[in-house]
Amino acid sequence: MTQITISQPEVYLRRQLASDDDVIEAMLVSTQGAEVRELWSNEGREGIDGRIRFLMKNRHGTPFEHTYFKFFVKAPIAVFREHHRHRIGWSYNEESGRYKVMKPEFYIPPRERPLVQEGKPGAYVMSPGTDDQYDEMRATMATSFQEQFREYESLLSLGVAKEVALGVLPVYLMSSMYASCNARSMMAFLSLRTDEPEASFPSKPMWEIDQLVARHYELALKAYMPITYKAFCDFGRVAP
Amino acid sequence: MTQITISQPEVYLRRQLASDDDVIEAMLVSTQGAEVRELWSNEGREGIDGRIRFLMKNRHGTPFEHTYFKFFVKAPIAVFREHHRHRIGWSYNEESGRYKVMKPEFYIPPRERPLVQEGKPGAYVMSPGTDDQYDEMRATMATSFQEQFREYESLLSLGVAKEVALGVLPVYLMSSMYASCNARSMMAFLSLRTDEPEASFPSKPMWEIDQLVARHYELALKAYMPITYKAFCDFGRVAP
Amino acid sequence: MTQITISQPEVYLRRQLASDDDVIEAMLVSTQGAEVRELWSNEGREGIDGRIRFLMKNRHGTPFEHTYFKFFVKAPIAVFREHHRHRIGWSYNEESGRYKVMKPEFYIPPRERPLVQEGKPGAYVMSPGTDDQYDEMRATMATSFQEQFREYESLLSLGVAKEVALGVLPVYLMSSMYASCNARSMMAFLSLRTDEPEASFPSKPMWEIDQLVARHYELALKAYMPITYKAFCDFGRVAP
Amino acid sequence: MTQITISQPEVYLRRQLASDDDVIEAMLVSTQGAEVRELWSNEGREGIDGRIRFLMKNRHGTPFEHTYFKFFVKAPIAVFREHHRHRIGWSYNEESGRYKVMKPEFYIPPRERPLVQEGKPGAYVMSPGTDDQYDEMRATMATSFQEQFREYESLLSLGVAKEVALGVLPVYLMSSMYASCNARSMMAFLSLRTDEPEASFPSKPMWEIDQLVARHYELALKAYMPITYKAFCDFGRVAP
Repeated sequence: MTQITISQPEVYLRRQLASDDDVIEAMLVSTQGAEVRELWSNEGREGIDGRIRFLMKNRHGTPFEHTYFKFFVKAPIAVFREHHRHRIGWSYNEESGRYKVMKPEFYIPPRERPLVQEGKPGAYVMSPGTDDQYDEMRATMATSFQEQFREYESLLSLGVAKEVALGVLPVYLMSSMYASCNARSMMAFLSLRTDEPEASFPSKPMWEIDQLVARHYELALKAYMPITYKAFCDFGRVAP
Repeated sequence: MTQITISQPEVYLRRQLASDDDVIEAMLVSTQGAEVRELWSNEGREGIDGRIRFLMKNRHGTPFEHTYFKFFVKAPIAVFREHHRHRIGWSYNEESGRYKVMKPEFYIPPRERPLVQEGKPGAYVMSPGTDDQYDEMRATMATSFQEQFREYESLLSLGVAKEVALGVLPVYLMSSMYASCNARSMMAFLSLRTDEPEASFPSKPMWEIDQLVARHYELALKAYMPITYKAFCDFGRVAP
Repeated sequence: MTQITISQPEVYLRRQLASDDDVIEAMLVSTQGAEVRELWSNEGREGIDGRIRFLMKNRHGTPFEHTYFKFFVKAPIAVFREHHRHRIGWSYNEESGRYKVMKPEFYIPPRERPLVQEGKPGAYVMSPGTDDQYDEMRATMATSFQEQFREYESLLSLGVAKEVALGVLPVYLMSSMYASCNARSMMAFLSLRTDEPEASFPSKPMWEIDQLVARHYELALKAYMPITYKAFCDFGRVAP
Repeated sequence: MTQITISQPEVYLRRQLASDDDVIEAMLVSTQGAEVRELWSNEGREGIDGRIRFLMKNRHGTPFEHTYFKFFVKAPIAVFREHHRHRIGWSYNEESGRYKVMKPEFYIPPRERPLVQEGKPGAYVMSPGTDDQYDEMRATMATSFQEQFREYESLLSLGVAKEVALGVLPVYLMSSMYASCNARSMMAFLSLRTDEPEASFPSKPMWEIDQLVARHYELALKAYMPITYKAFCDFGRVAP
């Protein structure tokens, strides 16, 4: 019997071409026209901070689009299901259960994951579970995933096509993808998929997409576009 | 123990506002400008057929966008996973396992579904399985789904949040959604998600998204936009 | 010499399939799954108002997408230039100066149009001009347009292709288009292209696209989706 | 009187992050899942050529999206009007006649531009004009542009706002923009905006957008993604 593996999501910034300067260039073509080319060899620009804050505050979004980030993401199908609903300014290529036999690798929430949902749809809060709840959940899931993968393999060995056999695999199966975006589409993602009480429009995303995916994207934004990132936070995390 | 149900995908055309006339109007504004308004009270237009064939043959796609179809679709998560990768000209709202307890309703392929995959990635064909293969697959899946749902319920009764408990549910769990599109985005979908050997660019979609979803969309296109549909087929099912 | 015409933009709602009920249906599939179909024959739904306000306040945007509006718009090229920058959820087909000889129809701002710009980029206000300023502007434009059209015709009679001759025509030449959208993409347009001081993110659009185009779209939203429209206004005209 | 300048469009590749390897990586995640990371340090990959040709031939488009090109483009408004109709996978920021006084710089077609349109809409061909036709066109345009700019300046000196005064400026006025895209959205642009008789779906774009803009984009694709570019050409210039 193939032994399953329990693992955690991973996010890597694979390539990027993104800076606060890219935003300024795109902004300044509005007011400078072709003279914006004089900026190309000018490293000591002034006023970047104020200009980016102006764009963010007034929701002038297009200058943030002239940037590029590509991530490699390993996460359970349940997370990808939500991720792929972001249609605009995002490109995806994902591991295919039609073309390959899936690996026996599954996600089980770590202990810090709030486990208990209290309240009604649209207004609930998540609270920590007890250690007993966590341990029992972990055991149930591990057993279930082991059994599910066993059934997947038995269907395959029966001669059933991969794309049919996968029907028994659970949404906590790990999958992989490349996801590309720009700073604007990333900020739209962050505004909906991170839980920040002080945001102007607070969201209640699923813990995994927030803590295990979005926060990694956020670090990339902060690292490569620090002024943009600070303005995003200062103005309520509203995507421009 | 909650008894599971095995069911098949369902597609309903819920609302539509789409006709070949809509295409012609949008096309004719190019050459007639504001005089296109004279068409509004003119039921006896001539030349629709040739004009639509011209657009299709030359891949002038935008006139087909001024149309609207809304479908209600019940299908397994595995199908929605592929469906949601169509980003442009599609709108989705889907049942949420975060907000509701999922029903114990699962998909098992019907007997006519080709079961056996032969060949390598990118070049395989699907063949029918034997009755024995089908029966064994069906039994394995039914047992697996029953067990998975039992584990889902046991996690819920343990107090684990719905959005975590769903991790053990398989991708053949049934879900529901509304999906809206226009004739152009629908044709892009059909060109990739139907298996038609005589298409100019043949695709090998998953059987379920082809036979159990796309073919229903195709019927709606044929019913409400018959000239468009015929031209789409005649010119190799290439989305304009 | 062909006499030119001075005219004003026109916006017609050509077709629509949009109601507050469409929003509710799309919203409720999240929590009701396939049982949402029971709503189809149920005219007396309760709680629409509160639900739509909840969606708007929390920026849950997708349920508003399952709606359709198609407009016929006649407006100067200068307005279409801005309009076409709205890429997502908008479809366009416009009169083509490559395929037809343009009509001698031009826009001159009406007397109520604020004429004088005071302040610097990003922070200016528009004030009314004097009657003298307006009259002189009107006379200058009328003369200019008459002369420009004469040159256009002389290029055409010289045998120059329509698509080249149009190079001398001004951006206040009138053009026509069909523009289709959904309630969500329309609200995104309204949030950026209307000047409402009490909006959460006030915009300073060009007067023509605000007063002569966007306000007509807004009336259509108000007429067909009154609850959505009221919630949009009450929550600061932020597109969900 | 301000003297006008006649100039030609300019296209610069400003930044890019694009290679055939990016396509392969995105493709291989389908069949290799997380093991695709082993490619990251592997410079000597085999089989790139065949794989990219497979994707192109079968119109698997998404792997081409994980790439980035940013161009600076100076071109007449008439060209930008067409360019901006490409909505998906394109980002734009353009010089604004609302925020700055436009420079007196205009486009006049060069002598090699076919001038005479023969045939009917949808089926015409463009032929060279005579030297006399060209010279007379050039003189008419130069005179017209000089006069139009004089009227623009007289409106400005009258105190009329920039955004109103621009109404008299012609669509051959030069403007500037940044335009960002990925290899897939660029190929969609090329397939519609270049005139290549041997294309599977030949287009008849306006000469300027083909020769003075699209061909520069094409050179960038060829330089940075030579295998992709060759496959694009070999398979009929159909965007995947």
